[in-house]
Amino acid sequence: MMAGPAAALGVRLRVLAESESASAAQVVPEAPVGRAADESALRALVAEPSPAAVLTFEHEHVPGAVLDALAAEGVSVQPGAAALVHAQDKIVMREHLSGLGVPVPRWAALASEAELENFLAEVGGRAVVKTSRGGYDGKGVRVVASPADVADWFAAAREGGPALLAEELVGFSRELAVLAARSPSGEVRTWPVVESRQVEGVCYLVTAPAPELDAATEHAAREIAVQIAEGLGVTGVLAVEMFEVPGVGVLVNELAMRPHNSGHWTIDGAVTSQFEQHLRAVLDLPLGDTSARAPWTVMANVLGSARAEITEALAEVTQRDPGAKVHLYGKDVRPGRKLGHVTVSGTDLDEVRARAEAAAAIVRGDEGGPIYWGENHG
Amino acid sequence: MMAGPAAALGVRLRVLAESESASAAQVVPEAPVGRAADESALRALVAEPSPAAVLTFEHEHVPGAVLDALAAEGVSVQPGAAALVHAQDKIVMREHLSGLGVPVPRWAALASEAELENFLAEVGGRAVVKTSRGGYDGKGVRVVASPADVADWFAAAREGGPALLAEELVGFSRELAVLAARSPSGEVRTWPVVESRQVEGVCYLVTAPAPELDAATEHAAREIAVQIAEGLGVTGVLAVEMFEVPGVGVLVNELAMRPHNSGHWTIDGAVTSQFEQHLRAVLDLPLGDTSARAPWTVMANVLGSARAEITEALAEVTQRDPGAKVHLYGKDVRPGRKLGHVTVSGTDLDEVRARAEAAAAIVRGDEGGPIYWGENHG
Repeated sequence: MMAGPAAALGVRLRVLAESESASAAQVVPEAPVGRAADESALRALVAEPSPAAVLTFEHEHVPGAVLDALAAEGVSVQPGAAALVHAQDKIVMREHLSGLGVPVPRWAALASEAELENFLAEVGGRAVVKTSRGGYDGKGVRVVASPADVADWFAAAREGGPALLAEELVGFSRELAVLAARSPSGEVRTWPVVESRQVEGVCYLVTAPAPELDAATEHAAREIAVQIAEGLGVTGVLAVEMFEVPGVGVLVNELAMRPHNSGHWTIDGAVTSQFEQHLRAVLDLPLGDTSARAPWTVMANVLGSARAEITEALAEVTQRDPGAKVHLYGKDVRPGRKLGHVTVSGTDLDEVRARAEAAAAIVRGDEGGPIYWGENHG
Repeated sequence: MMAGPAAALGVRLRVLAESESASAAQVVPEAPVGRAADESALRALVAEPSPAAVLTFEHEHVPGAVLDALAAEGVSVQPGAAALVHAQDKIVMREHLSGLGVPVPRWAALASEAELENFLAEVGGRAVVKTSRGGYDGKGVRVVASPADVADWFAAAREGGPALLAEELVGFSRELAVLAARSPSGEVRTWPVVESRQVEGVCYLVTAPAPELDAATEHAAREIAVQIAEGLGVTGVLAVEMFEVPGVGVLVNELAMRPHNSGHWTIDGAVTSQFEQHLRAVLDLPLGDTSARAPWTVMANVLGSARAEITEALAEVTQRDPGAKVHLYGKDVRPGRKLGHVTVSGTDLDEVRARAEAAAAIVRGDEGGPIYWGENHG
């Protein structure tokens, strides 16, 4: 999704692709195949056929040591390893955010089952346990009532697997997300705060702006994103996922340091998309206007499909709703997999949301059925 | 500019590129180098490595005989040679439009100097003479008072060069353009009518919608575009350039059968861009909503630049105007060359236009200077 904006800006992309058929390799001419954790592959990527101006990411699975090594050789790595670690390791992130005074749920690193027992006693018997690394889209997250519920994770941690942390179960009314972009020279811009609806830890619907959000909370949420971007030295796009808690305000849940699903609405719905802005930010260009183009924009994810070939859905979606913007990712269909999204903008929120959900249902091939039904939503 | 929409629709592009450094080859992975007039290059393009669903164009310089040969072999050529000839040969176009009853300027094919003398006498002493083929952006167009003014063109025509036609000098108040898209199964959609300002036959500013256009003329202009699309069997995007003549209405000036400069505003300013729509149309997918996203959108072309490297302008444009959308084409700078464009949307037309012109001036590297000053504007 960065390819279109890069072309318009006159920025040449070179992508390290997982495979020759990867989504990015389908649309970027220079796409050598390699693993993001492979230092020599990354070194070749930034060096050949000519030195790249900057190295950036569309996921966080790049070892910090590799990035530090490249940075030491003079490569501009954006965001740098020191910032990126906060999107890779939830314990480091929670520690740093607590240190900055950013509101987060009550939490504790868990060195042992006993520490989890203590935490459970403190918070009333139930808590969320997470692996500090490797989790995403609901993976690596469990609600537990006893250490026995995560015995396997404790065992893995003792074998060198990811450390664990516990968090209180927050009584939130909904989830919000704030997208920010920061450039190395320090310019920061945030987009309007959005509401993110999730099923099994996977985002399926984003509404921009978040409906009925009071001005004070909107302001506080955007300020928190700025504070985190500056406090952690983030460059490029930062997504801050938050809980809205009645009577309390917002608590920060997760961070991502890259264009994020909660910001896909910006492609059609904002003057500057998160993908254009990420390029601008990592290249230290001035940042573009983040205003919404329409009163309401709703983005619905397509998570899995009953169709063997989802491009078949294009005709039906447009026949039913010529204003629905369909984005397909060029991926093979698998249960629960993010295959694409649909965006609708307009002036009537109920109508816009209904249209986005209906269009996504068509691409999923299950009109009127459940929003999300995958085998693989652990 | 088709690469971004193609990626979103899950459509794989394969492009016959003029050279390895051509704009399209910079952004499309499958871009063999070859000439569009080379039948074997086109045959390989549509066949390898797998048969293409459709063959379409971003310019009209493909011989009809080549397209007919491919079509006879079962290739879906959109638009077909029988339609495309009207964008290639102005005499064929004028004849067919006159036959359809579409309003056009008074005109005559010129088999000899004597016929031009007669035409000049009929229309009051001065007329426009055009070459029937090969002209674009003001090239192949001259205002003449006598056959001597185009003696070279008559000589060339006798040597097998393009035939000539004469047209009356129309007393128009401004130029309008209507963009339409038509699919093989017959669906047609038009975008709002735009005003196109030209210098030396080259478009430099497009305002969408055309300001102060009365509803009857708007309706008539869109109906003419539909009539032409249907009458000529156009598939894909059709651009109809028109003169608005006070007291008369509109007269059709030129046609293009491809995404056109007068439609670049749709990338940022319409729900469906001309590039997405062209893909939809030639693939016979239902067409998208052509509504404007904002009350006013102005697109300013960048024609030549005093800068050696225009990407340098990105920072300055955005610093001055974070809402200006800059589109660069990855071309080397040459005088008068279309290097990119800038689009601004908003609610106040004067402000929007001033912002677009100021942003384009920055990219041109000549703030406050003339809109267009090239050596090569024949």
